[in-house]
Amino acid sequence: MAPSQRAYNFSAGPATLPLPVLQQVQQELLSYGETGASVMEISHRSPAFLDILDSARNRLRSLLQIPPNYEILLLQGGARLQFSMIPLNLLSSREDIADYVVTGAWSEKAQQEASKQAQARVIWTGESSGYDHLPEWDQLAFTPEAQYVYMTSNETIQGVQFPSCPSTNDIPLVCDASSDLLCRPLNMGSYGLLYACAQKNLGPAGVTIVIIRDDLLQRSQDHLPGYLNYRLHAEQNSLYNTPPTFAIYLLDLVCRSIQENHGDLESLHQLNQEKAGLLYQVIDEHPEFYSGHAKSDCRSIMNVTFRMHSEELLDRFVQEAAEHGLTNLKGHRSVGGIRASIYNAMPLDGVKSLAKFMTDFQDRNT
Amino acid sequence: MAPSQRAYNFSAGPATLPLPVLQQVQQELLSYGETGASVMEISHRSPAFLDILDSARNRLRSLLQIPPNYEILLLQGGARLQFSMIPLNLLSSREDIADYVVTGAWSEKAQQEASKQAQARVIWTGESSGYDHLPEWDQLAFTPEAQYVYMTSNETIQGVQFPSCPSTNDIPLVCDASSDLLCRPLNMGSYGLLYACAQKNLGPAGVTIVIIRDDLLQRSQDHLPGYLNYRLHAEQNSLYNTPPTFAIYLLDLVCRSIQENHGDLESLHQLNQEKAGLLYQVIDEHPEFYSGHAKSDCRSIMNVTFRMHSEELLDRFVQEAAEHGLTNLKGHRSVGGIRASIYNAMPLDGVKSLAKFMTDFQDRNT
Repeated sequence: MAPSQRAYNFSAGPATLPLPVLQQVQQELLSYGETGASVMEISHRSPAFLDILDSARNRLRSLLQIPPNYEILLLQGGARLQFSMIPLNLLSSREDIADYVVTGAWSEKAQQEASKQAQARVIWTGESSGYDHLPEWDQLAFTPEAQYVYMTSNETIQGVQFPSCPSTNDIPLVCDASSDLLCRPLNMGSYGLLYACAQKNLGPAGVTIVIIRDDLLQRSQDHLPGYLNYRLHAEQNSLYNTPPTFAIYLLDLVCRSIQENHGDLESLHQLNQEKAGLLYQVIDEHPEFYSGHAKSDCRSIMNVTFRMHSEELLDRFVQEAAEHGLTNLKGHRSVGGIRASIYNAMPLDGVKSLAKFMTDFQDRNT
Repeated sequence: MAPSQRAYNFSAGPATLPLPVLQQVQQELLSYGETGASVMEISHRSPAFLDILDSARNRLRSLLQIPPNYEILLLQGGARLQFSMIPLNLLSSREDIADYVVTGAWSEKAQQEASKQAQARVIWTGESSGYDHLPEWDQLAFTPEAQYVYMTSNETIQGVQFPSCPSTNDIPLVCDASSDLLCRPLNMGSYGLLYACAQKNLGPAGVTIVIIRDDLLQRSQDHLPGYLNYRLHAEQNSLYNTPPTFAIYLLDLVCRSIQENHGDLESLHQLNQEKAGLLYQVIDEHPEFYSGHAKSDCRSIMNVTFRMHSEELLDRFVQEAAEHGLTNLKGHRSVGGIRASIYNAMPLDGVKSLAKFMTDFQDRNT
């Protein structure tokens, strides 16, 4: 692809961003507002940056309808650091128990990491069927003394997504929403802690959003490494150390773009369902040619995963799609096949182009 | 300052970046190379990003003449996370000893954090004199069984900098070079581990460079939280999780800019000495008006700190300087006074403008 041309980029993350957001970044890159400096060059304690920080959190709070008894922390280290911070902060000893619902590659890694710190019990796993389906939530048997229940709302690699927000009654529910936060409304009151790295729906890689209920903040113990202590970050307004200022600036712009273009997450959810529906329809119409990975009742509206009959066909699909300006469709190396990541910022026209390409490719090859 | 105008920005960090670097970022922001996407939107495992990652590390290795038995890790979490990772990785038990040379606010914080993990001994501190001088290194008494000695090469807040690279014989030397890495050549062989957050001399906030000798990597134990394990990051080529791709891209461009404009760090060092000399000369010529904080033999060439007779004069200095396009000169809230941060990217003309302003301001107010 020639420089200056933009493709429809189906990368699973870092992923496509809204073009008007990138254009604004480009326009004000050398001098932000009245600061006389790039937004990358201003102090994290300057009024200009503090406005950005407040704005980003206020927009998140508004879009997700986050109640006042939840703090929004903006951290570094990605989901991987959360895999450790969650047990280190929410459990008080190595004997404490947490329940893990293992629905794909990411919850599997989270459980393995947590098991270094405490009793991280696998109460359900979809491993034996290649993580192609999800549990019936009502059938799960939580450990009565569990300090939290851990789940992953959308598994990016396998393309399975919980269709709605589960409940755990009195046990705090901890959710990795890295690849589907802001794709639809959610009931924040059902969660004790919900987090997401930014590089799918929220901005560039480098910032992680942690939304945590006030009472859980009190579990963080003083002996924890400072950067790993949720309570310290909350007390210091996410300025415990220099935050990733540029990534937070992008986060604010992405949230503003959603507010201005969609109003709320309900209308964005409808659009995301429409986008995903176009691709699943092609898959369902050609079951002999395209084989969807996820069972129908738990198909992700963010990551559409499917296979074809042969590796040779797959490679040709990926290559010809790229020639049509549809890039990064190769599935994760651990699963194979095709993965079309269609996060919020993927335009409807991009998905329509891919759906048409899939239909045409099938026609040409049967 | 009107939008689109750029000031001479003396912020201590995030700090000014080379204008040609920002212009290149701006120019290719919507479409990087032949990817059809912004550099922020491409996968960290794509060939285009892997080239950036290799390039950034190769440039660092070349500029700093880093021997092959050192790994270069690109991490998140800033210096604050290093304060914990260093003792967690380099010490094997809570009884292990590390020696800390406390020369200012940052080494003080590092020692406090390390003391949560092990025996972090303060073997020297400049606290009683407000951290205005440095120890005579040869006079320090290291603990024979210390697992490492910790120092901060440049204290950003107080403006004291070791004039040359100390030695610790057989005990590994660990150095926080956050605010002076790349300001001058260094003898990497003297260090066991040397690290720096990027937002002073290297790029935007969000990436931290850790240079570590191979034998020290073997100290990292499997039970550590995954993200905190140096060895895992080294084994995974700094792709243990999604790295802060955009910040690493900037790091590469900043290093290239040094190579193209200065060739090596020796010539850049001379320029930095010239820049700092201009400001210290004004201070020394008007000792009744400007009072330098650091003793002459340990003055920083990165952060020039001084006081004036009254708060009212200070405030006026900061305000009038800003009106002259010289911004962010207010000292750190914990120390007060003025701090002019003149990192690599601050042009000589910017420093000359400040020196002239200081002389004129003194003339007008005496």
